[in-house]
Amino acid sequence: MPAINNQTIMIKNLTSVRGIKCWGAHIGIKSMRRDLAIIYSEVPASAACTFTQNKVAAEPVKISRRHVRDGKAQVIVCNAGNANACTGEQGRLGAEAMVAATAEALGIDKELVLVASTGIIGEPFPTDDVVDGIRLNVGKLSDDPKAGSFAANAILTTDTFAKEGFLEFELEGSPIYIGGIAKGSGMIHPNMATMLSFIVSDIAIGPGLLKRAVTECVNASFNMITVDGDTSTNDMVAVLCNGLAGNKLIESETDDGYVLFRQKLEDMMAHLAKLIVSDGEGSSKFVEYRVSHAPSEEIARKLVRAISGSALVKTAMFGRDPNWGRIICAGGNAGVPFDYTHVDLYLGTEEEQVQVLKKGSPTGFDRNSVKRLLRESHLLVHLDMNEGDAESVGWGTDLTTDYVMFNSVYTT
Amino acid sequence: MPAINNQTIMIKNLTSVRGIKCWGAHIGIKSMRRDLAIIYSEVPASAACTFTQNKVAAEPVKISRRHVRDGKAQVIVCNAGNANACTGEQGRLGAEAMVAATAEALGIDKELVLVASTGIIGEPFPTDDVVDGIRLNVGKLSDDPKAGSFAANAILTTDTFAKEGFLEFELEGSPIYIGGIAKGSGMIHPNMATMLSFIVSDIAIGPGLLKRAVTECVNASFNMITVDGDTSTNDMVAVLCNGLAGNKLIESETDDGYVLFRQKLEDMMAHLAKLIVSDGEGSSKFVEYRVSHAPSEEIARKLVRAISGSALVKTAMFGRDPNWGRIICAGGNAGVPFDYTHVDLYLGTEEEQVQVLKKGSPTGFDRNSVKRLLRESHLLVHLDMNEGDAESVGWGTDLTTDYVMFNSVYTT
Repeated sequence: MPAINNQTIMIKNLTSVRGIKCWGAHIGIKSMRRDLAIIYSEVPASAACTFTQNKVAAEPVKISRRHVRDGKAQVIVCNAGNANACTGEQGRLGAEAMVAATAEALGIDKELVLVASTGIIGEPFPTDDVVDGIRLNVGKLSDDPKAGSFAANAILTTDTFAKEGFLEFELEGSPIYIGGIAKGSGMIHPNMATMLSFIVSDIAIGPGLLKRAVTECVNASFNMITVDGDTSTNDMVAVLCNGLAGNKLIESETDDGYVLFRQKLEDMMAHLAKLIVSDGEGSSKFVEYRVSHAPSEEIARKLVRAISGSALVKTAMFGRDPNWGRIICAGGNAGVPFDYTHVDLYLGTEEEQVQVLKKGSPTGFDRNSVKRLLRESHLLVHLDMNEGDAESVGWGTDLTTDYVMFNSVYTT
Repeated sequence: MPAINNQTIMIKNLTSVRGIKCWGAHIGIKSMRRDLAIIYSEVPASAACTFTQNKVAAEPVKISRRHVRDGKAQVIVCNAGNANACTGEQGRLGAEAMVAATAEALGIDKELVLVASTGIIGEPFPTDDVVDGIRLNVGKLSDDPKAGSFAANAILTTDTFAKEGFLEFELEGSPIYIGGIAKGSGMIHPNMATMLSFIVSDIAIGPGLLKRAVTECVNASFNMITVDGDTSTNDMVAVLCNGLAGNKLIESETDDGYVLFRQKLEDMMAHLAKLIVSDGEGSSKFVEYRVSHAPSEEIARKLVRAISGSALVKTAMFGRDPNWGRIICAGGNAGVPFDYTHVDLYLGTEEEQVQVLKKGSPTGFDRNSVKRLLRESHLLVHLDMNEGDAESVGWGTDLTTDYVMFNSVYTT
């Protein structure tokens, strides 16, 4: 590894978190890119995950589900290029070998290993390559920021850029760090995309409370993005908090710092989720959907998901079409109470919106000026239900001819 | 109206059903095409409907829901070109005027009128044109088959052809007729598509039992098709059975002829549903999805819907890609128990399929020969769960670059 000069550009990422070491290597599953990531904490950490809801879960997902059940983990190992899904007994043994090799090389218990995979479904898992790769690369684990970036790059498949984030906040007078990486929903070749995110922090927090925070934050972030509505067999978000910041252990939601940490964790996840949408395969626009003044957050979220996931709304966004009828119709399909006659609807960008509906009636807006606004690459669709105090925000792409080309022409 | 020679080509449709008269007129809502359909029974009929599940229901849907509650109706009046949805008070009054004009012109009770609309959402309803059109055209109601075709054409919007069906079967030694029309899910300009179907029969059947048959048959037919997953504000299926065949009134599912009628009604609906898919906007393929040996019909249906509705499966069909991973992944997202390790999967056409998975493992099939098969315009995807005796069939389109172009470039 060449010497890295951190003085010129200060990079902060996973490895800036106390006690975290990373590596990302090319072990030959993919032809050119790095394809093995290891994220290691010097001490066992509180751990919490969310996993795909798909009934067809990849082999590493099944193992990680078991290993995280006790709320403890120390390392995340992830390969790209092969999803190890629909691989049967051969895949199960491969994932177990991946765990065993990692545990052995690090001298830790197998139960402390979380394992993930992303890539092609249904191809035999390259167990030997992965096991050899782990043994060769564990010794390279480093707290150099470049190693964090290597890890961020090594989990990518069809993503066009690595997705990283870092933030800090103060608790009891000293800084807490959170670093995260993610990979996204590009889904060219040859199967579906996997959404992965690995987040580490040095905060001291109990595993039960961390699990709750992670679930809530995932619901408000990763679960509010849509590219094409399919959930992969491999989706996984893992959060490790190793306590090396030295704060007083947070064990209850009323404890000092919990609310702040939860918000910062959600900020990190929202940041990574938006990066995933930005890299949505074959999309030309990033669209933020806001539903405000809803009777409940659940209703607001379901509306955001139904509208952002509608093929007709997404093609309208691609076509710069102020087609409020499609938005209202998608809202009506959300499976929640929805009275469009109360609805105010605004279309445009973060900086400038035009009200197109007032209490469900067209405002007589100027179509051409709205169409001009919708030429922007970052759009905002804001639906005000005028019925309560809850709100929700989500992010989606448009549906483009390129999307269809990518997903049909690039065949297996 | 010019004289029509029925001797050369024998057309059978709605008007071939005893006591049914139709008309379809151009009243000027649409620029060139017929846009008002009337389907009338000489006597009040048992009636049953299913309606859109969209929370934003069009004004005519609200009225028809009320009018069909007593299980009786005598006429269906439908305009195309304006959906009368999101039109508020003006639209409600318009739909009521449409009903009143029809009832008055026919000298029947308003409660016997079912009303439907399809077309643009959110534009003021052209009440005067529609009311005048009804008054002018009621007198033209005819049992000539051409009048049935006029009606079939007058409910179309962006459909590229009229969808009609007719069948007969024997009960108690005399023929029973069923005729039906439908319009489909083309959704170019400028809002979402509406699915409408109007079916008439001369069988004598009680309204309670008819309601049950209609619900079951709609679930097995119209509810098993997908073009783009959105449900319109105006969807409606209406069935009138006027009893003029003179059979003994069917009032219980154990009565003679019920099972036969129910099957024939499902056949008619499946015929019309498949025609709708064939006319799916911007699609290049018609795909039949079969799930067999499922633990329950409900599970089979949910799997068919999840797989046929997946954007990734649909783009794979467009790309002639034997991408079984996408199909299994979509199955895993159906929200039902799904063990892919039991699954046999076949891809191809009705005439020739290739087994690509056996108990969840790739069969080592020849990709190129499957890709050649997938060049056909009518495809079959057959997933055998090997878990029970239930099955389900559904129909869908592929997702094409043309679909995106149609739905984005043709703006409001």
